[in-house]
Amino acid sequence: MPTLILVRHGQSEWNLANRFTGWWDVGLTEKGIAEARAAGELLARHPDMLPVRAFTSFQTRAIRTLHLALEACDRLWIPETKDWRLNERHYGGLTGLDKQETRDRHGDEQVHIWRRSFDVPPPDMEDGSEFDLSADPRYAGIDVPSAESLKMTIERVLPYYEEAVVPALKDGGPVIVSAHGNSLRALVKHLSNISDEDITGLEIPTGQPIVYEFDDAMTPGERYYLKDR
Amino acid sequence: MPTLILVRHGQSEWNLANRFTGWWDVGLTEKGIAEARAAGELLARHPDMLPVRAFTSFQTRAIRTLHLALEACDRLWIPETKDWRLNERHYGGLTGLDKQETRDRHGDEQVHIWRRSFDVPPPDMEDGSEFDLSADPRYAGIDVPSAESLKMTIERVLPYYEEAVVPALKDGGPVIVSAHGNSLRALVKHLSNISDEDITGLEIPTGQPIVYEFDDAMTPGERYYLKDR
Repeated sequence: MPTLILVRHGQSEWNLANRFTGWWDVGLTEKGIAEARAAGELLARHPDMLPVRAFTSFQTRAIRTLHLALEACDRLWIPETKDWRLNERHYGGLTGLDKQETRDRHGDEQVHIWRRSFDVPPPDMEDGSEFDLSADPRYAGIDVPSAESLKMTIERVLPYYEEAVVPALKDGGPVIVSAHGNSLRALVKHLSNISDEDITGLEIPTGQPIVYEFDDAMTPGERYYLKDR
Repeated sequence: MPTLILVRHGQSEWNLANRFTGWWDVGLTEKGIAEARAAGELLARHPDMLPVRAFTSFQTRAIRTLHLALEACDRLWIPETKDWRLNERHYGGLTGLDKQETRDRHGDEQVHIWRRSFDVPPPDMEDGSEFDLSADPRYAGIDVPSAESLKMTIERVLPYYEEAVVPALKDGGPVIVSAHGNSLRALVKHLSNISDEDITGLEIPTGQPIVYEFDDAMTPGERYYLKDR
């Protein structure tokens, strides 16, 4: 039975510092490392959940989460594919800002719109910003967005899911995707058929494996947390 | 200019315990972790050596060495491919044995032949051995050898090199291979044109990047240690 395991990266340095991160590449905290290992230990306790194939983003916090989880369940040897389309939503000009400072400056309501509206992107990344990644060799050949709404994030995540992840699911054996709050929202919205209004408020906890089991027609069942099984 | 970087995994638990390891999967020691990070820090100090593509074996010690080195030079995001053909030489029935005990039991000369002859394989892995990996899911669909000489190791490493690594080299940008003493001997023998007699005595140090730069006709230059540049 095709099985999809979604894991949001463990706590990052900027989750802890309460800064908008987006595509900026930050590391995991000690807590984040522990969360990633715990996710792998949970997989190890469910042999039917041991992944045979892995997907992750181009961002260190998701890649390291994947590696720490796979090491903890002795699956470092499975094939892994990295793709920028699984990256976090691009926070544009908010990247690097402290969330409280941003609220103080722009007001709670505006920040709430930027964070929680479905189709309003945050302000564009400014030219010359220290957080501009358009010349980063990691994104060579990729049209780095200057800001993304959740809708824009979904519009790149879902085609990649259909093109790369679904064929791997059909090959059989559990497939793990280690990614980010908003790239995983994109998948959960699609698989659990959640409305534009409701998806923006859905929290994806860090380091907590979420499972979808599919039937032979590739229809996903109810999602559940592996810790609850 | 195509550039190949070879790295032998950092010190493993069984390097330290002086046991024959081969295909058995053991972790890195603290020293091995430090060696892997130092390899990545050395790459970071040579921007023309930052890898754009990675290859490694199916064995945790080589995969972790790769990941630790790539993390240290901020290249975790490059594509990586794992293949059993980059695995260590299979030590057959010697797997798991303490090297001194083996010498005491079989004599120095016999152990020297097993370790250092080019084409004499060690005794076969016994049926039912706790170190038999033929039913390990990692090697599903692969005809796990019962023992390998260096010659047999070369006969699987080189075709993989030609089929997977050479095309990546031709694509441009440094390519890193994180592997094992004997799978790397196979490559060094081929690239530096070393005789059957001499290759068995050539030591590949752990965690020390070895570099080959190729000309346009894909002829490799002299190999050197990156630390010496």
